[in-house]
Amino acid sequence: MVRIIYPDGTAKDFPKNITGLNIAESIGPRLAKAALAITVNGELYDLFRPIGTDAKISIHTFDSKEGKHVFWHSTAHVLAQAVLQLWPEVKPTIGPTIETGFYYDFDKEDPFTPEDLVQIEKKMQEIVNSDYEVQREVVSISEAKKRFKHNQYKLELIDDFSQQADTVTIYSQGSFSDLCRGGHVPRTGMIKALKLTKVSSAYWRGDQKRESLQRIYGVSFPEQKQLKEYLHMLEEAEKRDHRKIGTTLDLFSFNDLSPGSPFFHPKGAYIFNQLVNFMRAEYKKRGYQEVVTPQLFHKELWETSGHWEHYRENMFLTTMDNNDAAVKSMNCPSHILIYKTAVRSYRDLPMRLADFGALHRNEVRGTLGGLFRVRKLQQDDAHIFCAEEHIESEVHAFIDFVKDVYTTVFGFDFHVELSTKPENALGSEQLWETAESGLKSALDSAHMKYQLNPGDGAFYGPKIDFHIKDAIGRSWQCATVQLDFNMPERFKVEYDGQDGRKHRAVIIHRALLGSLERFIGILVEHYAGKFPLWLNPNQVVVLPIADRHVEYCEQVAAQMREAGLRVDINVSAETTNKKIREAQLQQYNYILVVGDNEVKNKTVNVRTRDEKVHGEKNVGALVKELLNEVEEKK
Amino acid sequence: MVRIIYPDGTAKDFPKNITGLNIAESIGPRLAKAALAITVNGELYDLFRPIGTDAKISIHTFDSKEGKHVFWHSTAHVLAQAVLQLWPEVKPTIGPTIETGFYYDFDKEDPFTPEDLVQIEKKMQEIVNSDYEVQREVVSISEAKKRFKHNQYKLELIDDFSQQADTVTIYSQGSFSDLCRGGHVPRTGMIKALKLTKVSSAYWRGDQKRESLQRIYGVSFPEQKQLKEYLHMLEEAEKRDHRKIGTTLDLFSFNDLSPGSPFFHPKGAYIFNQLVNFMRAEYKKRGYQEVVTPQLFHKELWETSGHWEHYRENMFLTTMDNNDAAVKSMNCPSHILIYKTAVRSYRDLPMRLADFGALHRNEVRGTLGGLFRVRKLQQDDAHIFCAEEHIESEVHAFIDFVKDVYTTVFGFDFHVELSTKPENALGSEQLWETAESGLKSALDSAHMKYQLNPGDGAFYGPKIDFHIKDAIGRSWQCATVQLDFNMPERFKVEYDGQDGRKHRAVIIHRALLGSLERFIGILVEHYAGKFPLWLNPNQVVVLPIADRHVEYCEQVAAQMREAGLRVDINVSAETTNKKIREAQLQQYNYILVVGDNEVKNKTVNVRTRDEKVHGEKNVGALVKELLNEVEEKK
Repeated sequence: MVRIIYPDGTAKDFPKNITGLNIAESIGPRLAKAALAITVNGELYDLFRPIGTDAKISIHTFDSKEGKHVFWHSTAHVLAQAVLQLWPEVKPTIGPTIETGFYYDFDKEDPFTPEDLVQIEKKMQEIVNSDYEVQREVVSISEAKKRFKHNQYKLELIDDFSQQADTVTIYSQGSFSDLCRGGHVPRTGMIKALKLTKVSSAYWRGDQKRESLQRIYGVSFPEQKQLKEYLHMLEEAEKRDHRKIGTTLDLFSFNDLSPGSPFFHPKGAYIFNQLVNFMRAEYKKRGYQEVVTPQLFHKELWETSGHWEHYRENMFLTTMDNNDAAVKSMNCPSHILIYKTAVRSYRDLPMRLADFGALHRNEVRGTLGGLFRVRKLQQDDAHIFCAEEHIESEVHAFIDFVKDVYTTVFGFDFHVELSTKPENALGSEQLWETAESGLKSALDSAHMKYQLNPGDGAFYGPKIDFHIKDAIGRSWQCATVQLDFNMPERFKVEYDGQDGRKHRAVIIHRALLGSLERFIGILVEHYAGKFPLWLNPNQVVVLPIADRHVEYCEQVAAQMREAGLRVDINVSAETTNKKIREAQLQQYNYILVVGDNEVKNKTVNVRTRDEKVHGEKNVGALVKELLNEVEEKK
Repeated sequence: MVRIIYPDGTAKDFPKNITGLNIAESIGPRLAKAALAITVNGELYDLFRPIGTDAKISIHTFDSKEGKHVFWHSTAHVLAQAVLQLWPEVKPTIGPTIETGFYYDFDKEDPFTPEDLVQIEKKMQEIVNSDYEVQREVVSISEAKKRFKHNQYKLELIDDFSQQADTVTIYSQGSFSDLCRGGHVPRTGMIKALKLTKVSSAYWRGDQKRESLQRIYGVSFPEQKQLKEYLHMLEEAEKRDHRKIGTTLDLFSFNDLSPGSPFFHPKGAYIFNQLVNFMRAEYKKRGYQEVVTPQLFHKELWETSGHWEHYRENMFLTTMDNNDAAVKSMNCPSHILIYKTAVRSYRDLPMRLADFGALHRNEVRGTLGGLFRVRKLQQDDAHIFCAEEHIESEVHAFIDFVKDVYTTVFGFDFHVELSTKPENALGSEQLWETAESGLKSALDSAHMKYQLNPGDGAFYGPKIDFHIKDAIGRSWQCATVQLDFNMPERFKVEYDGQDGRKHRAVIIHRALLGSLERFIGILVEHYAGKFPLWLNPNQVVVLPIADRHVEYCEQVAAQMREAGLRVDINVSAETTNKKIREAQLQQYNYILVVGDNEVKNKTVNVRTRDEKVHGEKNVGALVKELLNEVEEKK
């Protein structure tokens, strides 16, 4: 008998070599049907793998990260099986899962064509329909080498694995076998809905000097309905692609002369500055103080901070005074240097230093993507220098700050993840306990539900991440609050306590929007370019129906600009209908049409970008309404 | 006879080999006494040098740049003469003039001591009193080498000169001779007042690998009174040193980990942001559009702009995508890239792109000085893309902009210099004519007197510089407006004209405050830390006389902060008098003392940092006054 302990702490005895599937069945038929994998004493098991000892378990369905991983990983094997059936000479290499779906890299002379993909998908469907049983084998290194002797990629992987273990695992389904750590779903028939999404080229081990490979991406779901929804979301995301909208609205551009560094055109820079000004106003209310700091630092700073050892490849290096130097990738060291310009006392804490300075990170060129992954970024970054006893109140205040901004201003749903002490953590047990219980109490007292990621904290401290959900259901990690016990040690950051002795300070790293570049990208897609009035560079456009209305339109525009609104006039010779359509494409919040009636009545005819017609309005009243809308950030 | 043409165009004939002094005497005894040098057909002549041909001339007194140069250069010779009399073994090297005064570098084993300086000054005074006649000789290279055979520095210089000419000039006074281009005053007795100001070490030819030298700085004047005023100004400047005040007021700091890049602490960053926000508000009124641009660019951009060839040593270089790259030193190329993202028509012009982005310039470490000479700088930079016909109106608008800001807001006097076409200029004669006459008309129609510097423009276009005069009479070049015909060629910047054809655009570079870092340094010294209310991070401090007044003080502070004012409370246990003194040292504009009376009457007792006591005031009324003061930037 083995004792199985469920996540809620209850336990039940089962015969030895019971499987995850058996346990799921013992709980109920619904779970048995939905189950995809099981975690056994921290290790991911296939549902069909026997459990030989007492074990803490948790069963995963498609709703969990682990369940998705197993499901997609199995689909990747089905993909490889299909490709081999179609092109037996092709060599499969690796096929991992990614955030959504999976890919598999193949050594194949010619790229896969769209027609190939259709064929492969059909073949995959056949494999699913055959409902092959998936089997796991543990084999010796030499046996594995024998089995994969015709595939140099697998042989290279086996050589690597042999450094750490005497055996490897092989998964098979029908005539197909693959070197694989697992886990996998029990039968190929469980993959009810699948789709290959794109092809690209890749390099073996991501190394441009190694073999060139063909990568196929795909995704799959337990139900057809989920795939449909997903494809619809992709379509919607495609329409909302911030790079497209950014061009249409003339918000920003990129240039190969500076890959990954956006050029914000006037309208994009307006959004950028609106966000900065908004955060500044919040900082004022919340006791933050802004600083302006250098961007180039001698190597010695990065040696002290540890970046020279651990992060150098991600920084742009230069030479200053005949000494190695780097363009900054983080603000923390600058803030520490400011903190250390004076002896600080407990009365000076917490000290909250904010910085919108530009950071540079040398991301690999191929990974750059619009505003989502950039090399130059400006964060709404701040560091809070405080004592241990401030941790809870500071974190609580930050959670409130996040709630106010995400929920009240942007209308985002969000969820929270707390990551706690990992192995090899730095700092005393007591410090971690204070810190983690501080974070938990802060979350509890802010009535914030959270997902616990035990052991997922950084080695230098625990953290809370905030994930927002955008208008089409995608999740984005933006805000973060991280405690840091490492930097204070490295830089000897201290304060004079009430007890007259020196104490080590705690540093809290925090950002709410994250990188402004990325956040603007998210906002563009979330709103699909339909920015709320306070953020929109295109607030109001006035359209004279005929030339004789232009003068009055200019008066209206002047009156509105005087009040602080952004107003354009379209005096072109096009028809009014065409001008309205154009204004709608440019996402003006308000379109004011002016003809004889309006001139006579001293009004404007108001409509929105979404075809709502508000009709004739007095200009003064409209200004008041609009200012109110800006003020309330509706 | 030779025909002498005066600056006003009138002419007079004189005997051949007439001297500048003779001409000055012919005009009047006052001028003859004040005259120091003469420009003859564009070449600077000593007053005693014979004029052999017809010539356009202008006579220089100490009021002109040329006059000062000659006067100080002659004093440098007196210095070298004095040093040689005291230490005959010392080797003089070079002794140029600088913005204020001169220096001379000597090869001497031991540094000069303060006592040495006193002795040298005394000896210089003797040389002045001896009233030696200054003489000019033209000698052959070989003769010059013979005369200076014991001085390897002069020999090296003679070798260099011999590349370009067969002769050199030597100036002598008494027993002293020096290799020198001239000009010089006719007699040492004209140097009525002199002062040696400091010593430092230097390298021969500024090269750290060459010989180490001892540098003596000095200054001199035609009248004792001028020297006195100058020394007083120096003393005043010493008191106002922005580095000292910056530390006292906790505005900024520097750190050897990033030489030349200021850290603006919260109070300094406040001033920084106030200036940026002020310029932004002005931009909005004046049709500028802000952009946000990258900082790292591949070499190819700098090759196109010409910086790679001409400015590379001044840029911080890095590697990006295995290619040479540089951290930007200028914004213009970024703005050009934005301009070129679309086809522009004459209707889009003028397009005024503004940018507060950080620039980096690799200044030599030894030349860095507080905020006045930095490596990281942010300018209120903008580039105006326009057609030739816009030049006059754009420059006029900029002059008005400068006037409004310098005179109305900061209360600076300023003067203007127009620099015109140099030799080897780029662009057609017609373009330069349009441009220069545009600048002149703009200056005239703005009723702006200006100094003309013929031939001093950049090779790529003429420019106007604006020099402000601070509270202690020092002059600072800040604003500049420069036409550029070069960048538009290099980057092919064009627009579709009304004629349906492509036209080359003109780019106007302009900055008003210049680098914000340097401008803040100037403001600190100009105001001696006593910032006007709108710029001061320390606006108001509330001082409770006893603990029982603290609560009311907090209400007062809250009310004032709500209105947007910056208010601190000093609740420390010190005496009220001491707190007032401290508040004055921190340059709070308003110091509000609160005791029983004030609590009872719901008032505050108002005094200023300059000991003005305004007495009891109602808080609401005070807030209104202060907001008005902020609004009016008084």
